[in-house]
Amino acid sequence: MVWLYGRHPVLAALANSERRIERLLATKEVAERHAAEFAGKPLQIAAREEMAQRLPAGAVHQGVAVLVAPLEDAQLEDVLARCRGDALILALDQVTDPHNVGAILRSAAAFGAAGLLVTERHAPADTGVLAKAASGGLEIVPLVRAVNLARALEQLKDAGFWLYGLDERGDAAIGTLDLKGRVCLALGAEGEGLRRLTAEKCDRLVTIPTNAALASLNVSNAASIALYEWARRRTP
Amino acid sequence: MVWLYGRHPVLAALANSERRIERLLATKEVAERHAAEFAGKPLQIAAREEMAQRLPAGAVHQGVAVLVAPLEDAQLEDVLARCRGDALILALDQVTDPHNVGAILRSAAAFGAAGLLVTERHAPADTGVLAKAASGGLEIVPLVRAVNLARALEQLKDAGFWLYGLDERGDAAIGTLDLKGRVCLALGAEGEGLRRLTAEKCDRLVTIPTNAALASLNVSNAASIALYEWARRRTP
Repeated sequence: MVWLYGRHPVLAALANSERRIERLLATKEVAERHAAEFAGKPLQIAAREEMAQRLPAGAVHQGVAVLVAPLEDAQLEDVLARCRGDALILALDQVTDPHNVGAILRSAAAFGAAGLLVTERHAPADTGVLAKAASGGLEIVPLVRAVNLARALEQLKDAGFWLYGLDERGDAAIGTLDLKGRVCLALGAEGEGLRRLTAEKCDRLVTIPTNAALASLNVSNAASIALYEWARRRTP
Repeated sequence: MVWLYGRHPVLAALANSERRIERLLATKEVAERHAAEFAGKPLQIAAREEMAQRLPAGAVHQGVAVLVAPLEDAQLEDVLARCRGDALILALDQVTDPHNVGAILRSAAAFGAAGLLVTERHAPADTGVLAKAASGGLEIVPLVRAVNLARALEQLKDAGFWLYGLDERGDAAIGTLDLKGRVCLALGAEGEGLRRLTAEKCDRLVTIPTNAALASLNVSNAASIALYEWARRRTP
C-alpha cells in the first residue's frame, strides 16, 4: 500500500474506479470543501501534524492523503487495443527520477497520450512523489512497465507506430516532421540518452533544436515539448 | 555564501568570470578528469561522504561542489541594453519552487532567452537546489528580481516588448501567434496563475491548448513549451 497526497493526486485517485481506497485522511476544512467527492469513502479527519507524521518528510499534502493499493500495471496489448486511429505513446528508457516521470505523466495526460512505456528496471515505483508530480496524470495515462523495452518497441512497430527517438545525434528537428498517424516518441535518461539498442529500434532520431551555450533540456521539459508538437498538429 | 553542487552547475560556475569561487571540493577522480577546468581554483580533494556532510541532505553532488558568493542580481536596464533586435524575456509571477525556477532557467538558456524576470518576494533564492535544476543556466541567463513586477512589465513595454500572459482565460493558442520582434512571456504560479494586476499589464492572454481531462501543465513544462514556440520560428 502507498500513501498519495495533495489535492490533485487524491481527487484523481478517488475519481478512478480502478483504485482501491484503503483510508482517506483529511483536515476538517478540506473534508467540508470536498464533501461530495469524499462521500462513501473511508474518511478520517486528521490534524495537519498528524498527517505529516504518516507521510514522507517534506510531503506537500495540502491537508489530504489516501492510502491506496498501487494500480495494476497496464499491459501494452490492452493499450494498443484501445488505440483508435492516430495515437501517441511515449517511451522512457531508464528515466529514474520520480519527479520527472511524474511530470511527464502529467503532460502526457494534458496532451492526450495513449500510454507511457517505461523500463521495468531503472524506473521509479508508483510512489507519492511520482503521483504528486503527476498531479492526477497517474490515474489517467496507462503506465506500461516493459521487461524488455526493445521488444515492446517492436510490438509498437507491428501495431503501425512510427518510432522517433529524441537524441542529439538526430538528423531532423522535431518541428519539421509531420507526426501523423501512430507515433511513439522515445526519450532517454539525462546524461545517458537512449541506450544503443533503443536508438537502433527507432525509425528516426530527431532533435529539439537548442543553443550551444546550454544544449540539454530537462527530460520532462523535452517530453512536454515533444507532446506539444504532436498535439499542435491536431488542434483545429 | 552558498554551496553549488553537481557537475554541470559547478563547471558552469567555474566558467563564469562573474563568480567569486571561495572553495572547490572534488573527489580525486573528478579532480583528475577536470584538471583543466580546476586549474588555479582553490581546490581541495574530499571524499564523497565528507562532501555529503557539508551539503544539504539528499544533494546529488556527483563528487563536486563549490562554495560561491551569490551572483549580483541583474538590473533590467542592463538586460534591455544588451538586447539587439528580436529578444525574449520570461517573467514569473510569484513562482516559488526552486526546482521549477531552476528548470526554467535551464530551458531559458537552451532557447536563448535574454533574461528571466521574477518577483523579489515569493521567488526562490539563489540556492544549490535552484542551481542544480538550472544545470548551468543560472550562470548564463540574467536573473532580474523586480520589487514591483507590474512596473518592470511597463519598462519592457516602453522598450518595445509585446507582453503575452500564459493564462487559461486566453483567447488565442500560443502556436497561432507570430511571436516576432520583442516578446515577454509571463507565467503565474501553479494553481494561482497570473495575479490580476500582472494579467492586466499583458497585451494579450494566450493558452497552451490541452485536454479537459487534465488541463494544467507543470509551470516549467509550460515555460519550456512557450520558449520552444518562440525559438522554433527562428530556426532556419
